[in-house]
Amino acid sequence: MKVLAIDTGGTQTRIGLFHDGSLVSRTSFATTDLQALLDAVKQLAPGGFDAAGIAFAGALDMRQGRILYAPNLTQWQGMELPPLLRDAWKTPVYMGNDATCAALGELTAGSRASDFAYVTWSTGIGGGLVSGGRVLWGRTGMAAEVGHMVLQPDGPTCNCGKAGCLEALASGSGIRRITERRLGRPLSAKETTARAQAAEPIPVEIMQAACIGLGQGLAILSEVLEPELFVLGGGITRSWAYLGPQVERALASMARTPPPIRLTELGDDVGLHGAAALPTHWPEKWPPPAK
Amino acid sequence: MKVLAIDTGGTQTRIGLFHDGSLVSRTSFATTDLQALLDAVKQLAPGGFDAAGIAFAGALDMRQGRILYAPNLTQWQGMELPPLLRDAWKTPVYMGNDATCAALGELTAGSRASDFAYVTWSTGIGGGLVSGGRVLWGRTGMAAEVGHMVLQPDGPTCNCGKAGCLEALASGSGIRRITERRLGRPLSAKETTARAQAAEPIPVEIMQAACIGLGQGLAILSEVLEPELFVLGGGITRSWAYLGPQVERALASMARTPPPIRLTELGDDVGLHGAAALPTHWPEKWPPPAK
Repeated sequence: MKVLAIDTGGTQTRIGLFHDGSLVSRTSFATTDLQALLDAVKQLAPGGFDAAGIAFAGALDMRQGRILYAPNLTQWQGMELPPLLRDAWKTPVYMGNDATCAALGELTAGSRASDFAYVTWSTGIGGGLVSGGRVLWGRTGMAAEVGHMVLQPDGPTCNCGKAGCLEALASGSGIRRITERRLGRPLSAKETTARAQAAEPIPVEIMQAACIGLGQGLAILSEVLEPELFVLGGGITRSWAYLGPQVERALASMARTPPPIRLTELGDDVGLHGAAALPTHWPEKWPPPAK
Repeated sequence: MKVLAIDTGGTQTRIGLFHDGSLVSRTSFATTDLQALLDAVKQLAPGGFDAAGIAFAGALDMRQGRILYAPNLTQWQGMELPPLLRDAWKTPVYMGNDATCAALGELTAGSRASDFAYVTWSTGIGGGLVSGGRVLWGRTGMAAEVGHMVLQPDGPTCNCGKAGCLEALASGSGIRRITERRLGRPLSAKETTARAQAAEPIPVEIMQAACIGLGQGLAILSEVLEPELFVLGGGITRSWAYLGPQVERALASMARTPPPIRLTELGDDVGLHGAAALPTHWPEKWPPPAK
């Protein structure tokens, strides 16, 4: 079976062709419009494919394949992408949230654990949960929004409009706002971490608080899911040597039986692997998209 | 198929006999020792049964049926109850955590929703989670320990040794300790609620904080599981008319798509229904107990 996998990020789109579960070719290009995607797919898979899976960075109603909110892809908001592409390609097209797809990629091609939580620590904080060997999809496919757990009801405002979400405390966009408030200009998580490593007191404090927030979030997932493993991905984990011990200390103090934390070994391909597995792991409760 | 269901609480044990899924007879007695249980079962089901399920109030390793920690049943700590009873009854015996069993009871005989969280608001705070029509068991059967989500890392100490767990902020035992500290003597949740309803200022504050804590816990579950429903049980929900609106307000402010909250309609039988369903809903990943 040939499956086309698409991982649509805010800036880059990655596509890959899978043959019986193996990634045989891939490419990436700047995310712009639908035509760019159609062109790239024609070039990568001129011989066609049997099904397609899309990992999408945004809020979806998976049941209908509707894009509800796409902070970095506003031109696609409101669109029903799968039926559109199904008509173009004459194959079934499945679409899921990117972080949940990443968890599916870990389940089928990565850690293959039966109980784990995948968490992306990046511009935002997303997640995907696997329990008893099955992905938790939730009512509409939006389960595992771990970045929007409210940890400090009187904390800083989040992009989502609530206050004190984990994402507002510890994500790249949260750190950008916190540094703006405390240092007078917005810094990336990478830059703030570099300054913390150089022992600048305020960045040290900011990254410490971010690590405690993430550790608290993982501790909550530990009590709620009793996973055997956490798998982390996302850009901020590139500084894991410095940040990891702080996250692990916070997790250990707030969970009774904290599982180990591993970084994903699938790297940037984790979403592609998940997208490729969507056609065969589509939730039983929803009708599969018609061919 | 005849199934014996046992719901072992700290003070009362309830047993019921199910015939093809229907509860045909039941009894309850003070929880003391194993002999009392064996005698009651002999009286309730003199004709025997095909399998037995136990909902147990305590920490278990479900895989082996080992009781790890039973705050109100210390004499049973360390015991492997199912093999013992299997030898006495010559039938397979399955044991699970009581709150997770309650969720299973809701799944098979109550709300029958496919995505929901069950939460007991009582002396402790426990839970059971259902996603995609399946109970989440976790690595050893201890998933859904919603009472031990840390909400305030610098909050009051919990029975489990951690600080700021939901259970320390909002459960009956937590309220007892909070009233002791703030009013000079320990009051039950029932008494504290009665005083709050009579507009005594400190009890009003204490119950408000408890409701906000529970609402925050439910909001976190809402983001993590995207359930279609919360089902609540436990003694403190008897004051739902007064407490419910406060919990719902907190939930609505901390979750983006909060599902409705319902009280369990199975009442005190919810655990029995779950125990009766354990033999047919035993997690696939663990070998069933040998006959």
